[in-house]
Amino acid sequence: MNKSQLQQLIVEKQSCLCVGLDPDFDKMPAHLLQLEDPIFEFNKAIIDATKPYCVAYKPNLAFYEAHGAKGWLSLQKTVDYIGDLHFKIADAKRGDIGNTAKQYAKSVFETLNFDAITLSPYMGHDSVEPFLSYDDKWVILLALTSNKSAENFQLLKTETDNYLFENIIQKSLQWPNSHRIMYVVGATNANYLSLVRKSAANSFLLIPGIGAQGGNIKSVIENGATKNVNLLINVARSIIYAGKGVNFQQAVAAKAKEFQQTIFKALSTT
Amino acid sequence: MNKSQLQQLIVEKQSCLCVGLDPDFDKMPAHLLQLEDPIFEFNKAIIDATKPYCVAYKPNLAFYEAHGAKGWLSLQKTVDYIGDLHFKIADAKRGDIGNTAKQYAKSVFETLNFDAITLSPYMGHDSVEPFLSYDDKWVILLALTSNKSAENFQLLKTETDNYLFENIIQKSLQWPNSHRIMYVVGATNANYLSLVRKSAANSFLLIPGIGAQGGNIKSVIENGATKNVNLLINVARSIIYAGKGVNFQQAVAAKAKEFQQTIFKALSTT
Repeated sequence: MNKSQLQQLIVEKQSCLCVGLDPDFDKMPAHLLQLEDPIFEFNKAIIDATKPYCVAYKPNLAFYEAHGAKGWLSLQKTVDYIGDLHFKIADAKRGDIGNTAKQYAKSVFETLNFDAITLSPYMGHDSVEPFLSYDDKWVILLALTSNKSAENFQLLKTETDNYLFENIIQKSLQWPNSHRIMYVVGATNANYLSLVRKSAANSFLLIPGIGAQGGNIKSVIENGATKNVNLLINVARSIIYAGKGVNFQQAVAAKAKEFQQTIFKALSTT
Repeated sequence: MNKSQLQQLIVEKQSCLCVGLDPDFDKMPAHLLQLEDPIFEFNKAIIDATKPYCVAYKPNLAFYEAHGAKGWLSLQKTVDYIGDLHFKIADAKRGDIGNTAKQYAKSVFETLNFDAITLSPYMGHDSVEPFLSYDDKWVILLALTSNKSAENFQLLKTETDNYLFENIIQKSLQWPNSHRIMYVVGATNANYLSLVRKSAANSFLLIPGIGAQGGNIKSVIENGATKNVNLLINVARSIIYAGKGVNFQQAVAAKAKEFQQTIFKALSTT
């Protein structure tokens, strides 16, 4: 999916909501655990309930790998089930040297047919380059993450008197095919969003940290949205674990709709 | 495996060699490709040929994930086959927020029974902490990697007038259970190894970049070894692809022995 297609999808659905598919046995409705593939059954129900309200899905690969080969199969089935009408993000946070990065790119973009992958920038350009060579596929580089310890290193000031995360954005925008780079910027650090927009005026940003992590939608839109929106706002736990019991899908759908409408309202009034 | 057990193993085997298990269909002997599980058959042959000469094995998870669920099964079989007489490193370069990190820790330390995992430091302490809570398991934090683009960000000078990688080492050594942290320091940057030793005098270092990547063993030992060695020197391609044809194991064994002896000689004369 290229940039204008994604922007078009956001306009059509009046939504820039991304639903995080982080299936956790301790949190999903108990009746699913008796089925042969609880992860896929849970995801299928979540996708059915949320697909009118979101433009993207983001499975966090850790939740699948924790179950070994079986989890990997659940991931494949999930990605197939999502289909091509939503933007599919592999939240992998990978980053490795060239020949290894090529293997990851193949795995995520070819075997699994994701549209995008999150990557750690720490190893620099050659760890990202193999992913950037795919047409219509995206790299989503960690810039400022939503966790508390993000400040440990991401907020170090560097020799250029910028924060480390600003250096990463500025430098990566000079790489070939940088028009296929998005950035992760946590909603929990909304004060830094306007700083991000100074470096990356037209880039798509993936915003985690809304919902369970406490980020504020209005401040994200005010500081992060551009004329074409160029935001994907991710919500995971607050939506996917909104319901309990056999009828959990109803609460999940209602919660997704609520987020879609809150975001759309904030976009309309900004 | 705790620190003194690992040090003991190094003394007993007169080796601090780690063999990187990066199975690549384009490079492995062709006759293996007809077998049902070429990755496992290749690894099994490599392990049989190299086990007298090394103390550790390091599968790079990307090469397994590239094959989806099937690759994950090959990885499980490989780890089981290595057994408990060698130190087992999951080269994963992960880094994610707390609840996700917990899933990864479970996957790598419990499901797969690795002794150690490589992690990216970019997200800070809370992304590493869940891995540090396991007794006798290790975190290997990326400090200065062996790829060319390492300089993009790892060699940025920060507000403390240190390189970013030095900040990461110094800061992480203050975290609880930091005695279970090792650092990745590429042999291709051997000049920086003595700088690393100023910050991490007694930590174990995992050294990639020897062999195909061009790093020099003598300068690694001179600048990186301590009284108790405290080094794991990783070699992948130069050993595992040393042989062609059905008798490839002989060349692999010879190459592993050659590395073990070169390293041991350098250790003895330093």
